[in-house]
Amino acid sequence: MTIVERAQEARKASFSLATTSSDTRNRALEAMAAALEARTDDIIRINNDDYERSVSENLPGPLLKRLKFDSDKISQVIEGIRSLIHMDDPVGECKMATELEPGLDLYRISCPIGVTGIIFESRPDALVQISSLCLKSGNAVLLKGGSEASGTNRILSSIIAEATEHAGIPAGWIQLVETRADVNEMFTLNEYIDLLIPRGSNSFVKYIMEHSSIPVLGHSDGICHIYIHEDADLDKINPIVIDSKTQYVAACNTVETLLVHKNRAAAVLPSLKRALDAAGVELCGCEETCRIIDIAPASDEDWATEYVDYKLSVRIVEGLADAVDHINRYGSGHTDAILTEDENTASAFMAKVDASSVFWNCSTRFSDGFRYGFGAEIGISTSKIHARGPVGMEGLMIYKYKLLGKGQTVASFSSGDKKFTHRKLDRNCPL
Amino acid sequence: MTIVERAQEARKASFSLATTSSDTRNRALEAMAAALEARTDDIIRINNDDYERSVSENLPGPLLKRLKFDSDKISQVIEGIRSLIHMDDPVGECKMATELEPGLDLYRISCPIGVTGIIFESRPDALVQISSLCLKSGNAVLLKGGSEASGTNRILSSIIAEATEHAGIPAGWIQLVETRADVNEMFTLNEYIDLLIPRGSNSFVKYIMEHSSIPVLGHSDGICHIYIHEDADLDKINPIVIDSKTQYVAACNTVETLLVHKNRAAAVLPSLKRALDAAGVELCGCEETCRIIDIAPASDEDWATEYVDYKLSVRIVEGLADAVDHINRYGSGHTDAILTEDENTASAFMAKVDASSVFWNCSTRFSDGFRYGFGAEIGISTSKIHARGPVGMEGLMIYKYKLLGKGQTVASFSSGDKKFTHRKLDRNCPL
Repeated sequence: MTIVERAQEARKASFSLATTSSDTRNRALEAMAAALEARTDDIIRINNDDYERSVSENLPGPLLKRLKFDSDKISQVIEGIRSLIHMDDPVGECKMATELEPGLDLYRISCPIGVTGIIFESRPDALVQISSLCLKSGNAVLLKGGSEASGTNRILSSIIAEATEHAGIPAGWIQLVETRADVNEMFTLNEYIDLLIPRGSNSFVKYIMEHSSIPVLGHSDGICHIYIHEDADLDKINPIVIDSKTQYVAACNTVETLLVHKNRAAAVLPSLKRALDAAGVELCGCEETCRIIDIAPASDEDWATEYVDYKLSVRIVEGLADAVDHINRYGSGHTDAILTEDENTASAFMAKVDASSVFWNCSTRFSDGFRYGFGAEIGISTSKIHARGPVGMEGLMIYKYKLLGKGQTVASFSSGDKKFTHRKLDRNCPL
Repeated sequence: MTIVERAQEARKASFSLATTSSDTRNRALEAMAAALEARTDDIIRINNDDYERSVSENLPGPLLKRLKFDSDKISQVIEGIRSLIHMDDPVGECKMATELEPGLDLYRISCPIGVTGIIFESRPDALVQISSLCLKSGNAVLLKGGSEASGTNRILSSIIAEATEHAGIPAGWIQLVETRADVNEMFTLNEYIDLLIPRGSNSFVKYIMEHSSIPVLGHSDGICHIYIHEDADLDKINPIVIDSKTQYVAACNTVETLLVHKNRAAAVLPSLKRALDAAGVELCGCEETCRIIDIAPASDEDWATEYVDYKLSVRIVEGLADAVDHINRYGSGHTDAILTEDENTASAFMAKVDASSVFWNCSTRFSDGFRYGFGAEIGISTSKIHARGPVGMEGLMIYKYKLLGKGQTVASFSSGDKKFTHRKLDRNCPL
């Protein structure tokens, strides 16, 4: 099948999938979990082939680590699927109900977006997570994984397709896209694909945004800040900065730049430097910072860099306004935190900083769909429409309006014979 | 100022605008209304110049009509501004509240998107409506109107800028974009502009989607359907079809194709043809339709055409499934209606049709932000993310997460020392 045919098939399946019952989708999720459990040995064997081929092709260590799909990781994704089953059905929720006139009632009802195209890197667990989220939310999906994991992706998608279709999900709802040429063609299929979700490098996400007219929900850089206000609690500073930088250095919600109030810098920086040194974090700083602690000077480029590494830039600022300006200029709208004991200062910071997550006295590492309690995470969006910040299943949802009438025409309102009541209703849509 | 400088200035203003109080924004809206009232004569004089120039340049009649900004139209937009003042503030609403652990509370708070770029045709009333919606919702705006109305747009935007800035809104929040070259450059400014909202022809909206990496909220074709099921109430059919086609023929929510159940066609079509003939509506139909009533044959192209005219295509279908397939194939996801007396049939139709508005026993013309009770309409979106169907002010809103802690780190949760409670909170964010 060509990629166009695959997309058409997915779109066709999406119409029926959108009307499957919550029970059917949950039973299919259980069938998917059971099939992955039953076929674990096959999956591991084929993943080993991918792994060995990638070793011989000198794939870098971190990618090899992410490619490995062992029984522990498989158990984890199966557990993830089963936890999804117990979550509320996101389809069919009544979000708004208005009487336009007695006997003419409008309802806004949540429904799946339709067909999503998801592009992810080598991790085979992402394929399982994403397809289970799409299934739970009633969306068809075209999946493109890394070519390193081609064998693993193929067996996983065929196990999932078979198990779910057997459980009553329309055939064709899950499609594997394999070649780079197919991905490039996929970007042009806005007639069949409603949303692209890339999970990969910033440059890759930007490339897609520039080369596709399909809406993209992606995250770009995570340049996160912590601003230490002049009244910050000394006991909170070091633990929060250390956690934000080192708890998992490769994540996009780690802190990259520390902004320190000028009246507090001398008191705070030496102890902070000792703690960061001990944690293996390299520092660079503005001129004034370098006068207080002995670190490398930071360039303008440092303020705009996502290190994703044991490195942190430090800048001394005049105060709140200066910190906010710096963040809104150099930040990426991901996660920015303030350490202060004053509620009004925290409130002003959180209002003025233009980021999807603004934190008061806690680690930037909390910025995450699981920690936010969404049960599952599609990604962390730095987009400013549709879904922002950590995105759970609702990022895959939209709504439709249902208007239930008894023969009404607009002419009778335009003529003034009738008037709209626009009364809020406290009931769900009866159909 | 270059367009880049204008966009930068708008972005700078957007940060302060986002934190203005509801009172400040409402006072500025009243100042805007009062200034437009006071300057009505100047506006009319300059609009006359635009009008006369356009007459001499042979601008088509319908565009001339839309260009005209007389005292009636000015009064209407002023009334529109004043009704906005009384609407709830969309900024700062608490949309979700979750305790992550006691003392670590997460809130999702509505906030403006930031900077919008709005491109509209000649109607000067659109400039006033759009800028008042942006102001109420705390968004900065770059406006590009039609060149026919250049003088009118200039005086309107300068009146609005002056009045609102005097009332405490940050300078630069409203920017006029004048040349075609500037618009094309505007499409590339994704660093400063968060959302483009084109209000114009389909081809124009599609052009923008293909040429800009900024997200676009636009509407394409409105190919709306009415499906007459076999049990449709005879008394409802003609009034609803006539209203849907002729109540305002130039609108995107008029019906373009009628689908008729094969068992009902012979009973319904002759009377419907008489009513449509009387209303001056030209008909074309499928082969079977032409056997029942004497009309022109329809081609495949007719099913995919938005006539925006006194023309209607008719097709006889096997039943509900066939009607749904036709709509999902040829429709534009705008508004589709079913006429039936059976609740289950209506329910199935509304679930299966992939459109932003699905109607039961009423005119497609109800698909409109004012009629839906949104108080104002940005447009009717056929996009499937962010905002779908008639879009009110909430289409200009997004949210941010505020996390309020007491020094928490992620490490203490990862180590198992602490557990997330993820308890739903019934309170608003205290800051």
